Amino acid sequence: MFMEQMDYFFNPKSIAVIGASRHPRKIGHVVFRNFIESGFKGKLYPVNPNAEEMFGRKAYKTVKKIPGKVDLAIVVIPAKFVIQAIEDCGKKKIPAVIIITSGFKEVGNVELENQLIKTLKKYKIRAIGVNGLGVFDAYTGIDTFFLPRYKLERPEKGEIAFISQSGATGSVVMDWMAMKNYKVSKFISYGNATDIDEADLTEYLARDKKTKVICAYFEGVKEGRKFYETTKRLSKKKPIIVLKGGTTEAGTKAVSSHTGSLAGAAEVYKSAFKQAGVIQADGLEEIFDYARVLATQPMPKGKRVQIITDGGGFGVLQSDWLIKYGLDLAKMDKKYIDAMKKIFPPYVSLRNPMDLTGDADTPRYREAINAAMEDKNVDIVLVIVLLQVPALTPDVVDVIAEAAEKKTKPVIVVSAGGRYTEVLKKALEDAGVPTFSYTEAAAKALKVLCEYSEYKRGK
Amino acid sequence: MFMEQMDYFFNPKSIAVIGASRHPRKIGHVVFRNFIESGFKGKLYPVNPNAEEMFGRKAYKTVKKIPGKVDLAIVVIPAKFVIQAIEDCGKKKIPAVIIITSGFKEVGNVELENQLIKTLKKYKIRAIGVNGLGVFDAYTGIDTFFLPRYKLERPEKGEIAFISQSGATGSVVMDWMAMKNYKVSKFISYGNATDIDEADLTEYLARDKKTKVICAYFEGVKEGRKFYETTKRLSKKKPIIVLKGGTTEAGTKAVSSHTGSLAGAAEVYKSAFKQAGVIQADGLEEIFDYARVLATQPMPKGKRVQIITDGGGFGVLQSDWLIKYGLDLAKMDKKYIDAMKKIFPPYVSLRNPMDLTGDADTPRYREAINAAMEDKNVDIVLVIVLLQVPALTPDVVDVIAEAAEKKTKPVIVVSAGGRYTEVLKKALEDAGVPTFSYTEAAAKALKVLCEYSEYKRGK
Repeated sequence: MFMEQMDYFFNPKSIAVIGASRHPRKIGHVVFRNFIESGFKGKLYPVNPNAEEMFGRKAYKTVKKIPGKVDLAIVVIPAKFVIQAIEDCGKKKIPAVIIITSGFKEVGNVELENQLIKTLKKYKIRAIGVNGLGVFDAYTGIDTFFLPRYKLERPEKGEIAFISQSGATGSVVMDWMAMKNYKVSKFISYGNATDIDEADLTEYLARDKKTKVICAYFEGVKEGRKFYETTKRLSKKKPIIVLKGGTTEAGTKAVSSHTGSLAGAAEVYKSAFKQAGVIQADGLEEIFDYARVLATQPMPKGKRVQIITDGGGFGVLQSDWLIKYGLDLAKMDKKYIDAMKKIFPPYVSLRNPMDLTGDADTPRYREAINAAMEDKNVDIVLVIVLLQVPALTPDVVDVIAEAAEKKTKPVIVVSAGGRYTEVLKKALEDAGVPTFSYTEAAAKALKVLCEYSEYKRGK
Repeated sequence: MFMEQMDYFFNPKSIAVIGASRHPRKIGHVVFRNFIESGFKGKLYPVNPNAEEMFGRKAYKTVKKIPGKVDLAIVVIPAKFVIQAIEDCGKKKIPAVIIITSGFKEVGNVELENQLIKTLKKYKIRAIGVNGLGVFDAYTGIDTFFLPRYKLERPEKGEIAFISQSGATGSVVMDWMAMKNYKVSKFISYGNATDIDEADLTEYLARDKKTKVICAYFEGVKEGRKFYETTKRLSKKKPIIVLKGGTTEAGTKAVSSHTGSLAGAAEVYKSAFKQAGVIQADGLEEIFDYARVLATQPMPKGKRVQIITDGGGFGVLQSDWLIKYGLDLAKMDKKYIDAMKKIFPPYVSLRNPMDLTGDADTPRYREAINAAMEDKNVDIVLVIVLLQVPALTPDVVDVIAEAAEKKTKPVIVVSAGGRYTEVLKKALEDAGVPTFSYTEAAAKALKVLCEYSEYKRGK
């Protein structure tokens, strides 16, 4: 029942946009047009009391006038009209509504929000919002984010879901993920959590087949106990990564004027997250560093990392960070070392970090990566590839992707540079290989992967 | 005398490329052609014993045959021929040589390197290298980095100098800075420091008018005492930022097989840096976070930061980080708060972080930024601008740039997103406003700025 009703948000067959508009600057216009442009296959009804026709379709004065069934209503009208619109939805038996409208509890209109809650309950309507940007589903084309695509790009289909209390933070993250070619399943900006809250969304996403990792940004949860119980129950099934805003006194004060949430003592949250098996991130970029590794890589058997690089300096920096984050440097089996010694130039350093040096080419990387993949002394392969060196051709990307595809142990890449490098990193992301620009970020993500692997094994 | 001779590396009037080649894959070819393409204005002589003519110019069998004066020789021939080439340079009275050739001490050929040192001394030739990529000067067009420009972009003219022991690390950083539109004065990859070392380069850059901040990556210094004395003497004149590779035992082992340097105990370096007033960075990206703020912003009078944002979540995260890094949130004068209250919508939060909210436009940012610039209770203005919000037009960049141009207090920007955002961030970098994607990085850079300001004032 819960799953069925939640599905209407992400995979509705028919949608009414209450507040659809002809005026290109209005939210109701952008939202409606987004559905046309995203190629939404279902039925789409504009609702507007002052129009007969819109986007070449018949417009309806209220949802009640719509002839067929409506799975989802999107509400983009001023706050004072929302209750009546929800009454109409109730009478029309619409099971799900996304309310983008703001002007409720977050600006002090607690009474209006309470009245809304009552109305939703009366008709057993489930709602996402108010004061949120709603839903983006990379698979079904549902997209209620009302920001134009030239300002806010949309990411491609993937396995990472992200829920955000803050609309602006959510949209920035979406835009940034699209640019980096990080892939998502669903994005939900749920605002005030008037009805559906972070725990409900976690419950749904844990059962969602398209989602492998659940990420969240919030400043406080609506019901602490409910969120704790839900995540504790689900965190071994799928990794749950949370960034909590407001971890200092000053941050907490800022929270109260932002979402009106009680940020609560950072330490209380921290220990609850830990007990529930929730992974806590310190920054937005970290959420996705962790999520990409957890979504794409197999669980490592241990924490012995083999570094393979063509830049000695990066190898040194990477070793420092791995040690600082509690990982170990693998010691490769003599058998593999001896085999490489026979074919590599004498100045190649076969220790860990393995330094293929600045004249490395793709065949040299292939030998080294294949050896590390086979060697039982290696749990994780970390390839640092500085693509600027003269002899290295772009097909090194395929060599890395082929190794990662085996899924026998985690393979991640550190690579830094300009546009040429960024293009090849996007190709690696396409192949499901997580890429990093910074040695510290890579080490931190591997630490989280190892910890989650231990947690899952019940250690 | 020192400065005059050093100038030949960065501003020579005539250059001989010893080992210039017709073969497009040879380093001697790429180096020579780089000079033609970079629009080098001086005289350019190819030296090659087996050619009469090259790139439409007469080629010379040795530098001795060149008719005019030669200020700088670039050596790209195999190690075994280098001593003879330097003998020739000595006889030709060439004052400066860049030796790109590797195969000396770093692969165990200590004897050959010692012989080279003797030859350089005999003729009083100063040398950068061996085993380095040499010099890039954004102002004069000197560019001995032999990597093609499609793989390795070159940054624009600026005031940050970077010296790197590691060639690969140096080139990656250059490429990355170019993409980010971070600007540089000079880049030096000095390899084995056979003659000129990190202390000499620091000495030169401290006196160089085009350089405001000196950055360095190395794994160990050649002469500890010399580097300490030099930096201690110069660190109040210009900020010196260092990233040292090899700070853990594993990292130190990696160093010995990379550059053959003694990495030394991390703690010894750390305390020496501190005493000498050298700023230590933990990662490559941090070097430039610090350098950009120090190169472009005035010294702050205190550490009270005013955050102005259109995204509440980012304001919360930023507050957390500022506090964690020891900065204070400014409390703006009532006078300015009251003035803004009169013209802003009631839901704008005028505390710190000041949340202009998701319907902020450029005029609202202008009012808020101008107030913070005028208010004596504010030492530093941190503008978080999420450019995705619907009403915000790109001219918000000009508003921020105009405030920063006054140079009355530091102004920095945090902004995250996709391609649209990146384009506008590059415009801000052009205007000398440092931009950050991550709230933590911005806080850390401000901490360093405040500490350097105190250090300079002798606190």
